[in-house]
Amino acid sequence: ARVKLYQLSKAGKLCVPAMNVNDSVTKQKFDNLYCCRESILDGLKRTTDVMFGGKQVVVCGYGEVGKGCCAALKALGAIVYVTEIDPICGLQACMDGFRVVKLNEVIRQVDVIITCTGNKNVVTRDQLDRMKNGSIVCNMGHSNTEIDVASLRTPELTWERVRSQVDHVIWPDGKRVILLAEGRLLNLSCSTVPTFVLSITATTQALALIELYNAPEGRYKQDVYLLPKKMDEYVASLHLATFEAHLTELTDEQAKYLGLNKNGPFKPNYYRYKV
Amino acid sequence: ARVKLYQLSKAGKLCVPAMNVNDSVTKQKFDNLYCCRESILDGLKRTTDVMFGGKQVVVCGYGEVGKGCCAALKALGAIVYVTEIDPICGLQACMDGFRVVKLNEVIRQVDVIITCTGNKNVVTRDQLDRMKNGSIVCNMGHSNTEIDVASLRTPELTWERVRSQVDHVIWPDGKRVILLAEGRLLNLSCSTVPTFVLSITATTQALALIELYNAPEGRYKQDVYLLPKKMDEYVASLHLATFEAHLTELTDEQAKYLGLNKNGPFKPNYYRYKV
Amino acid sequence: ARVKLYQLSKAGKLCVPAMNVNDSVTKQKFDNLYCCRESILDGLKRTTDVMFGGKQVVVCGYGEVGKGCCAALKALGAIVYVTEIDPICGLQACMDGFRVVKLNEVIRQVDVIITCTGNKNVVTRDQLDRMKNGSIVCNMGHSNTEIDVASLRTPELTWERVRSQVDHVIWPDGKRVILLAEGRLLNLSCSTVPTFVLSITATTQALALIELYNAPEGRYKQDVYLLPKKMDEYVASLHLATFEAHLTELTDEQAKYLGLNKNGPFKPNYYRYKV
Amino acid sequence: ARVKLYQLSKAGKLCVPAMNVNDSVTKQKFDNLYCCRESILDGLKRTTDVMFGGKQVVVCGYGEVGKGCCAALKALGAIVYVTEIDPICGLQACMDGFRVVKLNEVIRQVDVIITCTGNKNVVTRDQLDRMKNGSIVCNMGHSNTEIDVASLRTPELTWERVRSQVDHVIWPDGKRVILLAEGRLLNLSCSTVPTFVLSITATTQALALIELYNAPEGRYKQDVYLLPKKMDEYVASLHLATFEAHLTELTDEQAKYLGLNKNGPFKPNYYRYKV
Repeated sequence: ARVKLYQLSKAGKLCVPAMNVNDSVTKQKFDNLYCCRESILDGLKRTTDVMFGGKQVVVCGYGEVGKGCCAALKALGAIVYVTEIDPICGLQACMDGFRVVKLNEVIRQVDVIITCTGNKNVVTRDQLDRMKNGSIVCNMGHSNTEIDVASLRTPELTWERVRSQVDHVIWPDGKRVILLAEGRLLNLSCSTVPTFVLSITATTQALALIELYNAPEGRYKQDVYLLPKKMDEYVASLHLATFEAHLTELTDEQAKYLGLNKNGPFKPNYYRYKV
Repeated sequence: ARVKLYQLSKAGKLCVPAMNVNDSVTKQKFDNLYCCRESILDGLKRTTDVMFGGKQVVVCGYGEVGKGCCAALKALGAIVYVTEIDPICGLQACMDGFRVVKLNEVIRQVDVIITCTGNKNVVTRDQLDRMKNGSIVCNMGHSNTEIDVASLRTPELTWERVRSQVDHVIWPDGKRVILLAEGRLLNLSCSTVPTFVLSITATTQALALIELYNAPEGRYKQDVYLLPKKMDEYVASLHLATFEAHLTELTDEQAKYLGLNKNGPFKPNYYRYKV
Repeated sequence: ARVKLYQLSKAGKLCVPAMNVNDSVTKQKFDNLYCCRESILDGLKRTTDVMFGGKQVVVCGYGEVGKGCCAALKALGAIVYVTEIDPICGLQACMDGFRVVKLNEVIRQVDVIITCTGNKNVVTRDQLDRMKNGSIVCNMGHSNTEIDVASLRTPELTWERVRSQVDHVIWPDGKRVILLAEGRLLNLSCSTVPTFVLSITATTQALALIELYNAPEGRYKQDVYLLPKKMDEYVASLHLATFEAHLTELTDEQAKYLGLNKNGPFKPNYYRYKV
Repeated sequence: ARVKLYQLSKAGKLCVPAMNVNDSVTKQKFDNLYCCRESILDGLKRTTDVMFGGKQVVVCGYGEVGKGCCAALKALGAIVYVTEIDPICGLQACMDGFRVVKLNEVIRQVDVIITCTGNKNVVTRDQLDRMKNGSIVCNMGHSNTEIDVASLRTPELTWERVRSQVDHVIWPDGKRVILLAEGRLLNLSCSTVPTFVLSITATTQALALIELYNAPEGRYKQDVYLLPKKMDEYVASLHLATFEAHLTELTDEQAKYLGLNKNGPFKPNYYRYKV
């Protein structure tokens, strides 16, 4: 949806101001990184009861979602490989302790493939043909394009539904590949979203609408905007009480030294948040 | 220096185009997050031989440097608390498993204080007075303002230099607080910078200068710029070979689907990288 | 059951030789440490959809099960406290980065209590009275004695079954505590056991029976034995292929140097395995 | 020394009772696991300033020392491989997320080799010949036998001492391998031992001597004994105060239920402690 908005805006076809809430820092961290860190485990367990320890897993894509998946699986004893197209994300994967490989280098040895790229045909029929018996394929990315599921709907392969959201695709030699949610989003199909994450999302969306509604004429044109940093911070601050977290307040002297307002925003606009 | 540039620019006093290389993604990750993740351990060991396991540590500031320090110390068995002024960073600390506290809440119990805020007087004399005997105070942030060292240079306190970069500050009751590098940067004073990090920095700086020099007239005005994303990616790609990392190349079809050039840049300008 | 066997043996009432398979290294690591490391997450998610990040959790008991629970929850961003009666296990918890506390010190602040002690009445009514609204109580230890569930079955408290294995116990002021599996084992009631773990257990049991059956007269008396180390190693070796793990073989010279048979057993009898 | 004692005892040549303090749980955990977890990092940094992130490391041997080295390096972003002769330890390595390989499988790709086996000639000249330029070889195991250093003292190889404890061994084609401490123990030669660890060791030794001295005639024969569990627990309890750790005391009812004395020992004799 967000990509659509930018395309409309670029084409001059956006007829109202729009907020790209998806890229507000708070929402993005929770929807993607923090939520997926947990839901990859939850989704795999509920569908397959697989043990994570010792499993070889390849995660395609090392963005927020991929980072969350990799961190969780590594922490539970899986051996994780990463594929990437972007050298910066690739270097991050290296520094986090993951070997960066092409999918073909590990396709014969991995027990699990997880796609989180936003791309299409990241896992092809040719690669699925070379996977091990009993291996698991699933998608944490977007829509249902990442795994070329259509290529598996051919006469020589048998599909067997073993439980809700779980298909065994059976090759003529008896090899089975376990496909989850028919290649749709595992985190939405086979896991749940904690209420805490929903609260972050809903708060962000509500504040964005209020901002657009209340903004004085002229503040927003027919374009796509990021949520003002201060409101992003406000969403975060509303959720700190849950953790009994106590923020430190700047003294007057410190605020002056840093050139900041004591109530925020606390970061310049060019600041890039990270985990 | 970077802050200075933006101030000059704002004041209209910048007389040439400038690159803010410090905020280029690749350099920043290495200078701050990845480098500090290692140098906090190295700096503490070389100066104090302290055992990390079981120690209670408070890290002031959860930006890149703080995140690196926290991750390393947690991994080695320390119990880490975080102080923050920014609710977004505070929430990140919560999600990473750190209690977010005011310094005064833990000052009497911690074994180590590490400042990484960029702020001044983050640790005051009043707080130093309440620390435990044998506790360690050091700074990983910027300049030497974070710990109010001046307040310790009073007649009732005795300073004892126990080895290079290590002072015992001794209270009248015999309590000793171990001050490292007189409050200057621990990572520069008491640790080393790996050649790999220097290579990232030098490459980034060189490419920025080449870009400014080669750019057609008019591309850059008397302002501060971030390194073009594509060059940032180029720095990263030059360093991947060290890790035998193999990037995946987009197919023509995939590049078209994503609306990307096969050679990058791979992220839109509004993209915020994270660990 | 194991404890019973030793009691019978001590009382001279054991009428056949018995193998304590529960304490064979391979089985124990999988049944307890490795399995619980995953099933604590699985059990909590399936019953409550709770988000782990930032949650304050107290784990009562730092044996194999407790160690597994603590490692998994810490890795996913929870803040974990430990209670222990044994100073050795307590010191291990310190070195692994957990604060060792009495339950009463943290009872008012924790979001989740997990018992793994093998003891009774580890969580009392008095403590349940002081827990926060919405907190979760569950048992990963043994039988159903660890939480004093009986004390909650009193007229002033209302029980509401919200889904299978999940009860809300409601105090007169409206406070709800979420009790899982009525205090029975979470890992058995609300999670699944991976087939890999079952395979380890079944192999160990089968080999123990074969050993007792085939043993020459007199090797085993009416007592409780641990599985011979070599057979324990055999169970492990049978399961390595799953991970494409390749063991190193000793050269003749090395075997002689170490005083070991090239085929094992590889550890002296007094060896204590650890994670 | 410990092995010697058992050999003497076996040969009937031990003329006094002896305590195997090395295998007392508390001392062993600290001398091996907890201490090496930190000293592998410290030793490598002080000698080579190597960056850990992204480095490929092979650790030979997955006992206490190997487990400590692996955990620390993995936590700091290294990619770690393990070699093992013992299937139980091999399976533990798998479950902890390490690929178990033969040294020859990875010798050409690793940046660092660390030996922790207690064996001899674990790294041979033939393998050193195949290592990458700039790779590091060191020993955390025992004595100086693990790396076949003698094989490197041949005319065609040049040794260059680049700083204390650091030699470059130079092949005719210019390849350099960095040998630390001439193959002696890195943790003793190039790192320091925290005072906390020394305190554990000294306390254990002192208590063992006191026990042998005070024991009534006949309690100990001319054999090798492990420290009584209760004294091992006592060593641990003396060190808990450092961490402000608070043990839980059993109620009378609980002690009776568990069949334990309220003051310990808390574990049966057949109990195997783990991390």
